[in-house]
Amino acid sequence: MFGVTILGNNSALPAYDRHPTAQVITLNDQLFLIDCGEGTQMQLSKYRIRRSKINHIFISHLHGDHYFGLPGLLTSFGLMSREHDLHIHAPGPLKQILDLLFSTGDTKFPFTIHFYPLQKEGAIIDDDKFSVECFRVYHRIECWGFIIREKKKPRKIDIDRIVHYNIPAVDYEKLKQGEDYITENGEVIKNETVTVPALPPKSYAFCGDTIYNEKIVHKLSNVTMIYHETTYLKNLEERAASRFHSTTTQAANIALLANVKKLLI
Amino acid sequence: MFGVTILGNNSALPAYDRHPTAQVITLNDQLFLIDCGEGTQMQLSKYRIRRSKINHIFISHLHGDHYFGLPGLLTSFGLMSREHDLHIHAPGPLKQILDLLFSTGDTKFPFTIHFYPLQKEGAIIDDDKFSVECFRVYHRIECWGFIIREKKKPRKIDIDRIVHYNIPAVDYEKLKQGEDYITENGEVIKNETVTVPALPPKSYAFCGDTIYNEKIVHKLSNVTMIYHETTYLKNLEERAASRFHSTTTQAANIALLANVKKLLI
Repeated sequence: MFGVTILGNNSALPAYDRHPTAQVITLNDQLFLIDCGEGTQMQLSKYRIRRSKINHIFISHLHGDHYFGLPGLLTSFGLMSREHDLHIHAPGPLKQILDLLFSTGDTKFPFTIHFYPLQKEGAIIDDDKFSVECFRVYHRIECWGFIIREKKKPRKIDIDRIVHYNIPAVDYEKLKQGEDYITENGEVIKNETVTVPALPPKSYAFCGDTIYNEKIVHKLSNVTMIYHETTYLKNLEERAASRFHSTTTQAANIALLANVKKLLI
Repeated sequence: MFGVTILGNNSALPAYDRHPTAQVITLNDQLFLIDCGEGTQMQLSKYRIRRSKINHIFISHLHGDHYFGLPGLLTSFGLMSREHDLHIHAPGPLKQILDLLFSTGDTKFPFTIHFYPLQKEGAIIDDDKFSVECFRVYHRIECWGFIIREKKKPRKIDIDRIVHYNIPAVDYEKLKQGEDYITENGEVIKNETVTVPALPPKSYAFCGDTIYNEKIVHKLSNVTMIYHETTYLKNLEERAASRFHSTTTQAANIALLANVKKLLI
């Protein structure tokens, strides 16, 4: 299961019933929060998202519509007695901001917050089942995109064939890893005969607020789905550039050039 | 017209469709915002409150549920091209917080923000038509209450009587100020004969988060309406005290002792 829930995708000025940027990526039993505009915690409640499952938060840049909801979310985690660690990946100055807010309010947390300042492009998480990398995008201030990649999954056992060849359960793990099976008589049963390939691993790229720039294309190549901002329509290309945003056509161009399967705008 | 719109009165942990503290006081054509929890700007939109009429913002204390909505509101004022000055009255450290947030985001405002750190009890605004004073309440961190007082209004002209005595319009202003009218023949027409008293001036006190403390009573004496926090019911008096909050009965006691006409809890 690899899914995206858009909690907000409005431009900076909130309108009633539109919300600033925040999205939750579901990858099996993990939830990732990307950006956390004001009101994100109310949106999490509205969508009944189990916030205790969020262990990693990624912030693309320090314009308020992308993180003014974070201090309140962290405070609520504390009030809800969260105990397990939380990991925040964000531009460095956010650390100073959070430290100032929470020392002023004399706020203490019953859980540990690990803060990782984004510094160079590349892997920021490399777990057994997924990896996350960050890359620079081009905005008025320091701004980052993120790619979450599922790792290659083991092959699946074809249970009918397993029964047919009478293979014991103890050997399933080896089969999942692609090994052939050798019977007691020395007969080789090819792996493809008793397993089927897993679905190809998926990946999702979030390109934060950015001006159109083909330099990001090679970082996105073959990602399954990208979310690319588009604040303006094609006829406002100049205004988009002057404000470090993109148009819809430009977002589609990036997706085409990178051979991306799906584009969310 | 002197009214209060409660935009949020939840305790710190937001629930769906409950909102952290914020309230708008309407005094004729002036709007005052007291506290500005996360999501206040969305609530202003929902209640269709003309935010451009807000010129004074008061922040009681620097726990997030009372001000995490302020940075976003200020940003939106800027995006909406507000040009007239804004006055913020709040505990001193808020200035440093706002400066850090906005310098990090490279955010500039098309209007001037005047920041007034709350330092001692007493008048913080003394205008022709209203005054505002602040007083200390007793919470875990520095915390303030506010009293907004309408000034004594001029007497009202009784138009039927004015016509009867044939008094020219040029003299109305003096009558409103309580002067008697002297006719060309030297006859004195007592002010009470041709005017009626205005409604007595009203006042509103906001007591921020506070432990029960009768010291605040004398500051509230004869205020028309107070808003006093109550986080707990009577049977949880001990817990209320340990967390620097009050119970409902305690809030009512304060109102009774201060001879307050109405209590909002």
